Amino acid sequence: MKMSSRIQNITAGGSDGWAVYYRARAMKAAGQPVIQLTMGEHDIGTDRAILDAMHRSATGGNTGYALVVGNDDLRAAVAERIESRTGVPTGPENIVILPGGQAGLFAAHHAACDPGDTALFIDPYYATYPGTIRAVGAVPRAIKVSADNGFQPQRRDLEEAAEGASSLLINSPNNPTGAVYDADTMDGISAVCQHHDLWLISDEVYDTQVWEGTHISPRALPGMAKRTLIVNSLSKSHAMTGSRIGWICGPADVVHAIHNLATHNTYGVAGFVQDAAVFALSQGTAAEEAVAAPFRRRRQIVLDALAGQNAVRAAPISGAMYAMLDIRATGMDGESFANALLDAELIGVMPGESFGQGGAGHIRVAMTVDDDRLADAVRRIAAFAATRVG
Amino acid sequence: MKMSSRIQNITAGGSDGWAVYYRARAMKAAGQPVIQLTMGEHDIGTDRAILDAMHRSATGGNTGYALVVGNDDLRAAVAERIESRTGVPTGPENIVILPGGQAGLFAAHHAACDPGDTALFIDPYYATYPGTIRAVGAVPRAIKVSADNGFQPQRRDLEEAAEGASSLLINSPNNPTGAVYDADTMDGISAVCQHHDLWLISDEVYDTQVWEGTHISPRALPGMAKRTLIVNSLSKSHAMTGSRIGWICGPADVVHAIHNLATHNTYGVAGFVQDAAVFALSQGTAAEEAVAAPFRRRRQIVLDALAGQNAVRAAPISGAMYAMLDIRATGMDGESFANALLDAELIGVMPGESFGQGGAGHIRVAMTVDDDRLADAVRRIAAFAATRVG
Repeated sequence: MKMSSRIQNITAGGSDGWAVYYRARAMKAAGQPVIQLTMGEHDIGTDRAILDAMHRSATGGNTGYALVVGNDDLRAAVAERIESRTGVPTGPENIVILPGGQAGLFAAHHAACDPGDTALFIDPYYATYPGTIRAVGAVPRAIKVSADNGFQPQRRDLEEAAEGASSLLINSPNNPTGAVYDADTMDGISAVCQHHDLWLISDEVYDTQVWEGTHISPRALPGMAKRTLIVNSLSKSHAMTGSRIGWICGPADVVHAIHNLATHNTYGVAGFVQDAAVFALSQGTAAEEAVAAPFRRRRQIVLDALAGQNAVRAAPISGAMYAMLDIRATGMDGESFANALLDAELIGVMPGESFGQGGAGHIRVAMTVDDDRLADAVRRIAAFAATRVG
Repeated sequence: MKMSSRIQNITAGGSDGWAVYYRARAMKAAGQPVIQLTMGEHDIGTDRAILDAMHRSATGGNTGYALVVGNDDLRAAVAERIESRTGVPTGPENIVILPGGQAGLFAAHHAACDPGDTALFIDPYYATYPGTIRAVGAVPRAIKVSADNGFQPQRRDLEEAAEGASSLLINSPNNPTGAVYDADTMDGISAVCQHHDLWLISDEVYDTQVWEGTHISPRALPGMAKRTLIVNSLSKSHAMTGSRIGWICGPADVVHAIHNLATHNTYGVAGFVQDAAVFALSQGTAAEEAVAAPFRRRRQIVLDALAGQNAVRAAPISGAMYAMLDIRATGMDGESFANALLDAELIGVMPGESFGQGGAGHIRVAMTVDDDRLADAVRRIAAFAATRVG
């Protein structure tokens, strides 16, 4: 039976650089002591108090259909969080609760793009970006950024790509590069979006993980609130990856339309998970800083471990939980390096190419193992690279 | 800013018959003693043992990303349930776990239909059906069924509508009509799907609520497994509406494609919810029968309450948690009747028209209040109708 062309084309065929990830998993499962630095997931679980709040809600009777758009108190809490961080007046009417950040990416593109429309994204990119665009029937167009510019999108490149496009997807703090877009970059993005009448879809799931510079939400820039859809979640900020809860913040009419989509796609988020989210947000920024602290600490550990050598160079690591390491001095591409590293040192990392052409010649190290193991692994990566230089 | 045409067109404008529902809710919220017989939700919550299993899973550390396709043990449990009920060999490779039945309806249509394709559905219908079809960019085409045929789709009508279509969506046991499709009906559906090379999307969320006849899953019919996508969930069978967990069962290649869609739409279902689902399914059919028992009992209560009068006639109520009542003897349409009933008796019911043209001249009574109140309400509905019969 013939399936829709759209669903068959979500992922392009061929190698996507993930082979080394699956090989590392298989080796570990077979008992080899592989250090896995591949996945963007905390090495802690969700806080017990949040889980207890969830159970209190469920056993208290909150097990029926929740409001599809999200419960009033959660929408209010999210709106307050955004208003306090952006200075832009934000109310519950600007918030729709969705089952996670990925659901937000899908819904935002569904709202912004009709089938056949062009949707822009920045390369290197998080793995699902082009597939999400194809899943709504739109056509992804990559804008490559360079390590030489600290992986900051350049206005000229944006202008060139924007002709005829419907939307632009950005992610700052960035996975995989660790870049945090600076004021100049955000001004360029804002100008191009307004010049070409683009929707700006801003994936801000790492907004609590900023080590250098300042997180700028484009909702706060002049003229941008009406064309910006913020996608966020509690996955990274509160170590709630598994709970699948996030939101879109945008103009009330778009939120209304996405609510309507949600009625026909996911039909809301479990009420007890929403109550857990309200509890989590009520813990304030201290709780978010506690979840972020290990990555802040490990960023310095990575930089220290790489000091005094030249075989491996770290991109700035301004935010998020990853170190993007430039291994071009070895003359290898990221995939060859990652495979050789796995064999020689039993260390699993992601080839930069798995995040697009902009990641070529790099590897991504997730700082998601304990400090000592991370320090040891990064030192061994540098030593391994040194044996391949020259 | 201009949104996509697709998202703007999910719901058509104009009255949809839900005004009386919102009016009943508002009256009740304002303190009036309205009996609400509008919503398809159990008057019990999720069983405490299931919620405790969920909490054990979460506090045991299952709070990270789950496998997007669903956990092995849950997929195996669902496959076993389906194989035991259909006799068709079914393995985990035939199952993808999704956040609820609605997510299954969306994903199944996404897999079956490209933008512009025609998707068939039966009228009267569950409220989200045409919007779900439009949400994937396809074009809904209704096939009207009649109370005079017990709301069973007629082969001639199916044949006439099927020309050029890509898929057919059915729901047996049926919401809102209470029909359970018999062997002749299923044979007709099967023949038309094979003749016109249609995907059959079978919404079986009421499969544990059969009061008369037998539930026939089209997966069990000759030649149909390869073109059938079963959509099901634990919402109705285990009173887990709020947990948002369901699945699609179908050919392995479609399941693979829908897994891929899920990666780009919802990114999996909470692992602790999946563990709760495994626990729920492990309780066997006795647990399902216990959840269904009140509706089995109340069906008889409705029939008894309507005995010895002619102003209101009940459709067969062969399955599900609704009674579809024919009020045409009053000369009123369903919406006028429901509005007048709400004013005169403070009883809220759904106008049949809110489920499509096929529901005209009917009201839907959800059997979701306790037995005594239901008996009283139905007697008052009949008495009210009698005053309106010319």
